[in-house]
Amino acid sequence: MIVLTVTFSNFMEKFKNGHYIFSGQDTLELAKRYGTPLYVMSQDIIEEQIKRLKNALDLTETPYKIYYAGKSFLNKGMCYLIDNLDLYLDTVSGGEMFTALEANFPPEKIAFHGSNKTEAELRMALENSIGLIIVDSLTELDQLNKLGDEFNKKIPVLIRVNPGVEAHTHELINTGTTDSKFGISIPEVEEILDNFKNYSNLKLAGFHCHIGSQIIEEKPFLIAAKKVLKLFKRAAENKLTPIELDLGGGFGIAYTKEEINFIPENYIPRLVSALKVEAEKLGIDLPVLSFEPGRFISAPAGITLYTIGVIKEIPDTRIYLSVDGGLMDNPRPGLYNANYDAVICNREITEENKKSVRISGRACESDQLIDQIELADPREGDILAVLKTGAYNYSMASNYNRLPRPAVVLLYNGQSDILVERETYEDLTRKD
Amino acid sequence: MIVLTVTFSNFMEKFKNGHYIFSGQDTLELAKRYGTPLYVMSQDIIEEQIKRLKNALDLTETPYKIYYAGKSFLNKGMCYLIDNLDLYLDTVSGGEMFTALEANFPPEKIAFHGSNKTEAELRMALENSIGLIIVDSLTELDQLNKLGDEFNKKIPVLIRVNPGVEAHTHELINTGTTDSKFGISIPEVEEILDNFKNYSNLKLAGFHCHIGSQIIEEKPFLIAAKKVLKLFKRAAENKLTPIELDLGGGFGIAYTKEEINFIPENYIPRLVSALKVEAEKLGIDLPVLSFEPGRFISAPAGITLYTIGVIKEIPDTRIYLSVDGGLMDNPRPGLYNANYDAVICNREITEENKKSVRISGRACESDQLIDQIELADPREGDILAVLKTGAYNYSMASNYNRLPRPAVVLLYNGQSDILVERETYEDLTRKD
Repeated sequence: MIVLTVTFSNFMEKFKNGHYIFSGQDTLELAKRYGTPLYVMSQDIIEEQIKRLKNALDLTETPYKIYYAGKSFLNKGMCYLIDNLDLYLDTVSGGEMFTALEANFPPEKIAFHGSNKTEAELRMALENSIGLIIVDSLTELDQLNKLGDEFNKKIPVLIRVNPGVEAHTHELINTGTTDSKFGISIPEVEEILDNFKNYSNLKLAGFHCHIGSQIIEEKPFLIAAKKVLKLFKRAAENKLTPIELDLGGGFGIAYTKEEINFIPENYIPRLVSALKVEAEKLGIDLPVLSFEPGRFISAPAGITLYTIGVIKEIPDTRIYLSVDGGLMDNPRPGLYNANYDAVICNREITEENKKSVRISGRACESDQLIDQIELADPREGDILAVLKTGAYNYSMASNYNRLPRPAVVLLYNGQSDILVERETYEDLTRKD
Repeated sequence: MIVLTVTFSNFMEKFKNGHYIFSGQDTLELAKRYGTPLYVMSQDIIEEQIKRLKNALDLTETPYKIYYAGKSFLNKGMCYLIDNLDLYLDTVSGGEMFTALEANFPPEKIAFHGSNKTEAELRMALENSIGLIIVDSLTELDQLNKLGDEFNKKIPVLIRVNPGVEAHTHELINTGTTDSKFGISIPEVEEILDNFKNYSNLKLAGFHCHIGSQIIEEKPFLIAAKKVLKLFKRAAENKLTPIELDLGGGFGIAYTKEEINFIPENYIPRLVSALKVEAEKLGIDLPVLSFEPGRFISAPAGITLYTIGVIKEIPDTRIYLSVDGGLMDNPRPGLYNANYDAVICNREITEENKKSVRISGRACESDQLIDQIELADPREGDILAVLKTGAYNYSMASNYNRLPRPAVVLLYNGQSDILVERETYEDLTRKD
């Protein structure tokens, strides 16, 4: 058994001269230079998270592919970065494919997902020779097969399997149970395999399953993976040669000290060993294993910097602290009851100065970012960093209350640069 | 006692030649002409809702002001419309003020709200001579008074009072309880009034309170209003002459047949009578009454048209129906467990053809638009209208999954025209 020493990121909660340092850089300097609210992404942490996955996978001596799940955080700069780090890219819409293609991301390394792709998007994928299409329904299978005629192409597909596995996670991000809009049930997939000759324009490249997000337990992954592995045998019996088993993403992140991180260094060797045993039992070769981490890579790499505004103390109740962003740049607390940790950037916390507060956004409704947290004697004008906001923050941001979306700054090699520009008021009325 | 005959909108659920007619227009024609997903807004319904409020208020023979709450749905076109209908405008950010000013909305008819306005926004309000600033905290009171020096202006303000009234509504939109980020408590306001000479650059125009959204009960409104009315007496005792009592918005809308509409025709006469009695008791004149409806005006005026894509029947479980939008164009089901009604536009429902389905969005997560609904034998390619989406849909829309935001079409006088253009893929990468 391989035992890995897990080295966690050193980039969290360091202070230098009373200033909070994120990924080696002074957050007060960043707030001053670029303004708030501001998303800050660390290339170092992105690279570190990817290295952790690669190291764990390299040790298993099994061929693998890592797709970065674009939906967690995607823009042209991120595409360049992901390409330089030699990852594949998982896209879920025409807009994501467009972004990747604009950034000259190699189309053959792009996968296209989605439970309800439009025909225009499927055509876009075929026109641009996108590497893989993950087929999510019988409808799509037929549709693609027809398009294959028109494009005169043999289209490589993965079939998304609904493994009927319950992952213990939030209802909204639990996608692998039988009662889900995603994937095709195992009996239906078996029927497809037995009649795959009907899909003469499709090339079965493998199978995909994804049981949900924010998973920290290993067992549901393994159960799902074993179920899908059996389909490779069924495929072989039908003289099909799928080569890729995509196990999706969903590696959980601890947003607060109370939550638990998913540790790939522990999980991956155990998963691969178990799958090797299973494949041998089934008398098949272990397929190329694919993973689709998004949040695992991007969430810990990001923080959001806000300026603290109004502080209200309601006697015998609580202190309300308002920041210059909120629901519009981070809808996750509202959507998923997501928790976050935060830190005052210009004052280190001590036993003496800590104060319990509720952090509200500035939206004209009761938008809470953090229900209750201890901060270092917060004052108006302080800079606040909300941590691990790299995933599903910028990508879900809105212009609610007609607020321009913040800029995203990338930190790299001790430098910083704009990754996505701040919106202006003019941007808000551009389409009016 | 005045009894009004309430005439409800005739624009709901009419079919003509098997096509669903919204606000007198064929929804299939609209979907074909402008594409889906598509927001459709009816000027007729907007005007009708405003007329209902005005009629009810006119009959009370009391001076009043109606502010349209921009946060529910705002763009330049909506500003023109609201101005033509002679309403005031309630804004909550620099972006909303900017939009109104760009549309040449009279600045003196704009009010500026917000629990955490930035200094830049306050300056913007003063530079543009915005009509009223609704002050939400002691901090803001001081800040504005200081800015008054600099701008050499007597700034008209309403003080937002937190009346400590519990409205029975969703946690996120309940804003009038003591435990809220909004407003200043009554004892604090009393102290401000007793020392108002300290705020020599401010002119006290009145008071504001808003106890929450989606309210269908009258009692909490009345209790809050009575509490705030007492502050006018206190002000008079301090030789101050506030003239406006802004009772906020929050008139509830029935999104489905199971929900209850707030009926201004019933409520307004009762409220005004009760306040007249109360004012007489206090020995003061009844102030100008202001209301800030947003949802009441915009929600019933809007529908969203989608194309139905993949339909999946999961044996013994349910039918999943996917549309070409979702969480990104309507986050309210995710954020507030909001319910909606919907109708197939190209097939009238009958006892024989109705089928119970779940409506999912196309986001790469389990985004549900409607948990369970009966539709007329839905098929792929059908057009679906989700009803009463005019408020907090476009204004809260995101580019999640990198999907361009839909266009908004305005229906008027039997015609239709683009109110807000559809975003393009190029728009998505504009800031990258």
